[in-house]
Amino acid sequence: MRVYFDNAATTAMDGRVVEAMIPFMKDHYGNPSSVHSHGREVRTAIERARKKVAELLNASPSEIFFTSGGTEADNTALVCGIETYGIQHAITSAIEHHAVLHTLEHCAQKGKVKLSLVKVNEKGDIDLDHLEELLRSNPNSMVSIMHANNEIGNINDLSAIGKLVKNYGGFFHSDTVQTMGHYEHDLKTLPVDSLVAGGHKFHGPKGSGFLYIRKDKKIHPFIYGGAQERNMRGGTENVIGIVGIAKALELAYEDMSGHRAHIENLKKHFIESLKQQIPEVSFNGRSAEMQHSLYTVLNVSLPYSEENSGMLLFNLDLNGISASGGSACSSGASVGSHVLRSLKADPQRESVRFSFSRFNTIEEVNYTVEKLKELYGVPA
Amino acid sequence: MRVYFDNAATTAMDGRVVEAMIPFMKDHYGNPSSVHSHGREVRTAIERARKKVAELLNASPSEIFFTSGGTEADNTALVCGIETYGIQHAITSAIEHHAVLHTLEHCAQKGKVKLSLVKVNEKGDIDLDHLEELLRSNPNSMVSIMHANNEIGNINDLSAIGKLVKNYGGFFHSDTVQTMGHYEHDLKTLPVDSLVAGGHKFHGPKGSGFLYIRKDKKIHPFIYGGAQERNMRGGTENVIGIVGIAKALELAYEDMSGHRAHIENLKKHFIESLKQQIPEVSFNGRSAEMQHSLYTVLNVSLPYSEENSGMLLFNLDLNGISASGGSACSSGASVGSHVLRSLKADPQRESVRFSFSRFNTIEEVNYTVEKLKELYGVPA
Ligand SMILES: Cc1ncc(COP(=O)(O)O)c(C=O)c1O
Ligand SMILES: Cc1ncc(COP(=O)(O)O)c(C=O)c1O
Repeated sequence: MRVYFDNAATTAMDGRVVEAMIPFMKDHYGNPSSVHSHGREVRTAIERARKKVAELLNASPSEIFFTSGGTEADNTALVCGIETYGIQHAITSAIEHHAVLHTLEHCAQKGKVKLSLVKVNEKGDIDLDHLEELLRSNPNSMVSIMHANNEIGNINDLSAIGKLVKNYGGFFHSDTVQTMGHYEHDLKTLPVDSLVAGGHKFHGPKGSGFLYIRKDKKIHPFIYGGAQERNMRGGTENVIGIVGIAKALELAYEDMSGHRAHIENLKKHFIESLKQQIPEVSFNGRSAEMQHSLYTVLNVSLPYSEENSGMLLFNLDLNGISASGGSACSSGASVGSHVLRSLKADPQRESVRFSFSRFNTIEEVNYTVEKLKELYGVPA
Repeated sequence: MRVYFDNAATTAMDGRVVEAMIPFMKDHYGNPSSVHSHGREVRTAIERARKKVAELLNASPSEIFFTSGGTEADNTALVCGIETYGIQHAITSAIEHHAVLHTLEHCAQKGKVKLSLVKVNEKGDIDLDHLEELLRSNPNSMVSIMHANNEIGNINDLSAIGKLVKNYGGFFHSDTVQTMGHYEHDLKTLPVDSLVAGGHKFHGPKGSGFLYIRKDKKIHPFIYGGAQERNMRGGTENVIGIVGIAKALELAYEDMSGHRAHIENLKKHFIESLKQQIPEVSFNGRSAEMQHSLYTVLNVSLPYSEENSGMLLFNLDLNGISASGGSACSSGASVGSHVLRSLKADPQRESVRFSFSRFNTIEEVNYTVEKLKELYGVPA
């Protein structure tokens, strides 16, 4: 059996997304900036994709900018938001994705902003009192807090954070890469200035993404060049990526509650089985609390065992199970997880992130639990 | 007849490139940063692509960084080259692509560099004496001069320019988007520090590109995030784009001289036919000089005629012919061409860029000349 439980790192493309992209590989090859018929037919597809994404998010097409992925979108919002508005202070947390953390660290290192980290407890909860304190001493900050954490799955209350940021006149960016396509976002009511998506997290293509920026915030481009994306992003558009991410989001919204019910069921069963069958198992962050974590992510902490120490992912892989030891999006397990370190997770224990998609099955969960029992020498 | 003569804007994908990409849409979906088997098979494909590109350019794989296109690659070399080396002066020309021009203008506007424009004559030739003068007063400059111009096709002597830049200790970046895949680049001998490619200019996918940076130049990333591209570009890789651009470059090198002979033949025939059949036709820049211009580009200047004034591209399009009035990569014909303006082209005349690929035919050239004759009222 080959089991793919690394869907928070990336997902398999939906066959219908592939089918939507192929005509733009084989037949419609014009440059969307060209005014002739070859160009116009492609321009139409891009604008239709933008309209679809906007519609699903209850936003306006003029607020959606396609990018090469979640990372570029994060960089754009942060770097250009800071530069355009002359922002001098930024707030984030130590458990953000590197797309946010390294970007803000670079801004700080170049002297563009002073960077503060909001406190996070051992469960991965953002300390909202500390956030308010930071905002009080630094109004007009750039605040970047993710919607859900890619390693431990914790979901943050964007409404509460957004209101706080607004009270102090800041710019609120949220990295929504892990929730886009899995939860609904209503941008008419959500108090964020910008958020981002990476298509490959919801069965779309890798190298596709978008940035939403609220109408009243105008930032300058990150990538300079031609007039593409209404002068916001130079470069010939990744047409298949754009068509693909829009189709993937459309499919995600088509049956979001069905997918969610299916995956929640897997996750609950996984938690129960582990608790019953693996002695001393525990869970990192809030990932085992269904209401406070992504239904797609379960971060399991396993007791020390000599055979598995530093080898657990490898042992799982030998058994055909693909999972991740933290964030595969950054650099694999090899350097360890900055998130688990921030949570002061016991370095003696092994942590594995299992992450699910609608393509997973109960049999895969059972198989994985069986293999974990074998690896940990639990009698059958 | 439907004729596509806008190959400098973008090209149709080669069917073999599509075939190479499809397995990575349907079967191999792992995240290349993941250490498990799903990830490793994709990582292998990326590193194989990098090796192939490096091999073809006589470079080392560690000098090749995949990007989302030519524009991002230009931005990376320029912005990060300037920042990393603390460069305070930049030199380019007014006829560069906006990916270079707007990027450097933004750097200048932010006070990072002083920007000088090297003189260009009415044929589009770079004034090398002026370049040397600028370098003498500003050693250690960032110099960005394109290999070939995307509108008028002029080819610059990179060896001569590179030697000049080296003499004054500068950083030499060249935008090679229009020559990559059409001319050989030998990076063991070419005196450039960095150059770039966009896959869609040689029958690869849009939204794919790469940046070459010479080993002895280490610049910091442009997009911050995960450890992808050896810490040089954060973001989950556009796997199909990477596989596609490498395959496209491989195919381009496989029969470069054959393709060149075929296209040169079309271009020569086009020039001769126009000279014979359209009174007062002329050519912009050096595009009609086979030795001094891209074999893929012919920029035609047509006399004033009321029927075609401001309407020529539209009239061609009505006849099924897709061509461009300057650079479709930036913003179409609508705002006019900054290149032709710099060359002081007569604004009363109509300019059309016809650009060719190995998929074009002599019949398409004949058809286009016939239609131009009709549009200009030349008796049959
Ligand atoms: C000379 C030149 N440089 C840069 C670019 C930008 O490349 P891309 O569209 O892949 O971003 C283009 C065309 O688009 C070009 O012709
Ligand atoms: C929370 C989060 N932010 C950002 C990213 C980066 O997105 P991308 O890989 O599309 O650049 C990822 C995953 O890769 C992520 O999980």
